[in-house]
Amino acid sequence: MKKIIIPKEIITVNENNEILRNHALEIENGVITNILDLEEYNIENFDGEILNFRNLTLIPGFVQTHVHLCQTLFRGLAEDMELLDWLQQKIFPYENSHNLASLKMSAQLGINELQKGGTTTLLDMGTIRHEEIIFEELKKSNMRAIAGKCMMDINELYPAFIESTKDSLDYTYNLAKEFHNSNNGMLKYGFAPRFVLSCSEELLTESKNMMKDFEGSIYHTHSSENKSEIEAVKKMHNMENIEYFNSIDILGEHTVLAHCIHVNDNEINLLKNTNTRISHCPSSNLKLGSGIANIPKYLKENISVSLGADGAPCNNNLSQFTEMRLASLIQKPIHGPTAMDSLTVFRLATIEGARALHLENEIGSIEIGKKADLVLLNFEKPNVTLIDENVYSSIIFSANSDNVENVMIEGKWVVKNGESLNYDEDELYRNSKLELEKLLKRVKVN
Amino acid sequence: MKKIIIPKEIITVNENNEILRNHALEIENGVITNILDLEEYNIENFDGEILNFRNLTLIPGFVQTHVHLCQTLFRGLAEDMELLDWLQQKIFPYENSHNLASLKMSAQLGINELQKGGTTTLLDMGTIRHEEIIFEELKKSNMRAIAGKCMMDINELYPAFIESTKDSLDYTYNLAKEFHNSNNGMLKYGFAPRFVLSCSEELLTESKNMMKDFEGSIYHTHSSENKSEIEAVKKMHNMENIEYFNSIDILGEHTVLAHCIHVNDNEINLLKNTNTRISHCPSSNLKLGSGIANIPKYLKENISVSLGADGAPCNNNLSQFTEMRLASLIQKPIHGPTAMDSLTVFRLATIEGARALHLENEIGSIEIGKKADLVLLNFEKPNVTLIDENVYSSIIFSANSDNVENVMIEGKWVVKNGESLNYDEDELYRNSKLELEKLLKRVKVN
Repeated sequence: MKKIIIPKEIITVNENNEILRNHALEIENGVITNILDLEEYNIENFDGEILNFRNLTLIPGFVQTHVHLCQTLFRGLAEDMELLDWLQQKIFPYENSHNLASLKMSAQLGINELQKGGTTTLLDMGTIRHEEIIFEELKKSNMRAIAGKCMMDINELYPAFIESTKDSLDYTYNLAKEFHNSNNGMLKYGFAPRFVLSCSEELLTESKNMMKDFEGSIYHTHSSENKSEIEAVKKMHNMENIEYFNSIDILGEHTVLAHCIHVNDNEINLLKNTNTRISHCPSSNLKLGSGIANIPKYLKENISVSLGADGAPCNNNLSQFTEMRLASLIQKPIHGPTAMDSLTVFRLATIEGARALHLENEIGSIEIGKKADLVLLNFEKPNVTLIDENVYSSIIFSANSDNVENVMIEGKWVVKNGESLNYDEDELYRNSKLELEKLLKRVKVN
Repeated sequence: MKKIIIPKEIITVNENNEILRNHALEIENGVITNILDLEEYNIENFDGEILNFRNLTLIPGFVQTHVHLCQTLFRGLAEDMELLDWLQQKIFPYENSHNLASLKMSAQLGINELQKGGTTTLLDMGTIRHEEIIFEELKKSNMRAIAGKCMMDINELYPAFIESTKDSLDYTYNLAKEFHNSNNGMLKYGFAPRFVLSCSEELLTESKNMMKDFEGSIYHTHSSENKSEIEAVKKMHNMENIEYFNSIDILGEHTVLAHCIHVNDNEINLLKNTNTRISHCPSSNLKLGSGIANIPKYLKENISVSLGADGAPCNNNLSQFTEMRLASLIQKPIHGPTAMDSLTVFRLATIEGARALHLENEIGSIEIGKKADLVLLNFEKPNVTLIDENVYSSIIFSANSDNVENVMIEGKWVVKNGESLNYDEDELYRNSKLELEKLLKRVKVN
């Protein structure tokens, strides 16, 4: 059945960044079929469900382009450490101890938080085993996602956490066959070799080659995050990280690289000329002491930048609001207070995320023909700007998940009145805690 | 009547940072009269009210040492600007347009947000007029505060917003006489010449002299926030900002300087040798593009550092959680990921704030004899660490005002079940909006 949503205002994020008041959104079969000007259209003539949200602000759902659902369980357990120590002493041993039950809870915990914070699409990097359960949870929760198992056939930091090149490639191919374009196309496959230090050249290039069989898939890896990491990459391949990716043909418009903090001018040119996508994760970059990526420079060069919360243990949240605020704030002391204004950042969090994933014709803005991935924000609260003048500032600098009232993905509600329709939060908390306690008993440190 | 609070755990923030489980807090007349070990003490023998919060984590109330309640109404109306432009084009014209009614709403809006976020003590800088209404609202809401009217007898940026030296001093003295140690000592006076650029030397020194008549008062001003600001100070006085303060005897242990970002080694020595207090406001410092204060250096030198949200328009929140997280995160890329660990930052937000205000014998930690300024956090929620191992990380990196369940100031509840007992939030929103709309009509831009 058709329905109409009537919000206070529609923040379209279309080409002209139009903000529409006194307009209604018509939705059918999960798609935005019309945007009606209520001065001209008499909704009494509408034959369908009319949803009145005249006190709420409608925005497109957020797109996060770098997330690790498998790590949500480990929030707060890996503090004040640098990337390689953090991986070696904490994250690798923990991920290695996941079983189906714990990974399931980790995914649920993450999806719940993401949806309640208005994120409707994500690019997820799984762990090396049990990826099926992540796809299952993504499907059950009606999440739009590009996901894939993490691939690792080298691991000097924590040798127990490894797989053979062949196993990794076979498992990956089978997963892609099973899940790419599943759930009516809401789920796609993201090939996810972890990072140079954990991947043989064969793994990196063969997983890239597989993409030919899966149109619309994404190549998702980390790059140039930490100085010790890139020193190790140089030692391995005698090249900078992105130069190495270029030499083996990994760069390109279907590749999303998380971080890209420490890069030289040649690497910036490579990113630009290959149209490679950068996923910027400001909380994670600060918390691990990695550095601050030069995002204003990337934007000036027209390089694709989008945002992600990364994993819970290096953040320690999964909220796009947190990332947007920080993405703006951290650049201002360096590039001046006008850098990374709120509209620019809001676009990175929505339409630019969609573009990074080649979903810009489907999501990322509120336009006729796009999927109904929608978030209704309650800005009639005293924590945001009191007048209507500056909605982008309210979104970027003041709002948080508490302002999220309702969330819809492809026409289906996943959050209503601030509550998840997928999960009972008390149960989620109890079960997650239980699975974490069991997992911690299984952990073997080096 | 005596009462007992039984939480899940007590995060004492005492000298040894003890965390007590299975303990109860006894409170009488707003004071913590005992901490009982429930393995030894049988609470059935207790003759008084027993409050069971066995699922909640008890922490001392947060102390914010730099706030502008008068600016809360202007949230979101002064974006992406540098300090001096921000003052000239927005904040000065807005503050100048305050009347009693708008200032009252601004204070209510701020106090509501602060208390709901667990802040129980603040050092506030008012605007130049109508300070009585701020004291009145602080009293009505049972807030612990040191507050004072802002003093300005020079204003090259916005000449309409000024007062004579004599008027400023007289009004200040009268306010101090009326409000210092009022509301049973919960309110004290904070002498508040705005900053060097808005103050004659007479204003700066005479207001300092007045403090002799008001034991326990604080001197509260801004310093070394922005490069253009310190260039202008140099032009005026041929000295760096803090060197100038030293030359006129402004520094000292009863002086709180907000910001202190751009300081030289001599100035650091002056701050150290005079035992001057620094209030660090990370969100504000980033948003105005001012810079990043070298807090790890200050801490190494044993200089007093505490935290504040500053005003809503340069943040755009008033949450100590936001400031704690950012205070930690922004130092890590510069000083490494172990810098500003969560316990250190939590102490800055509580006991170090108390020490900055010379209230460390009354508040800032949970110890026998201290005032019952308490916050109960709900950490049985999926947004924080699932196991009990790392409560400081939950507080600093994951929690937000949503985790605040109950807040007590001097034994009296101000927040219960996440709701303010002082304010009806819908009414607060409506009235604030109304007063802002009226104020904006009164604003005269230069």
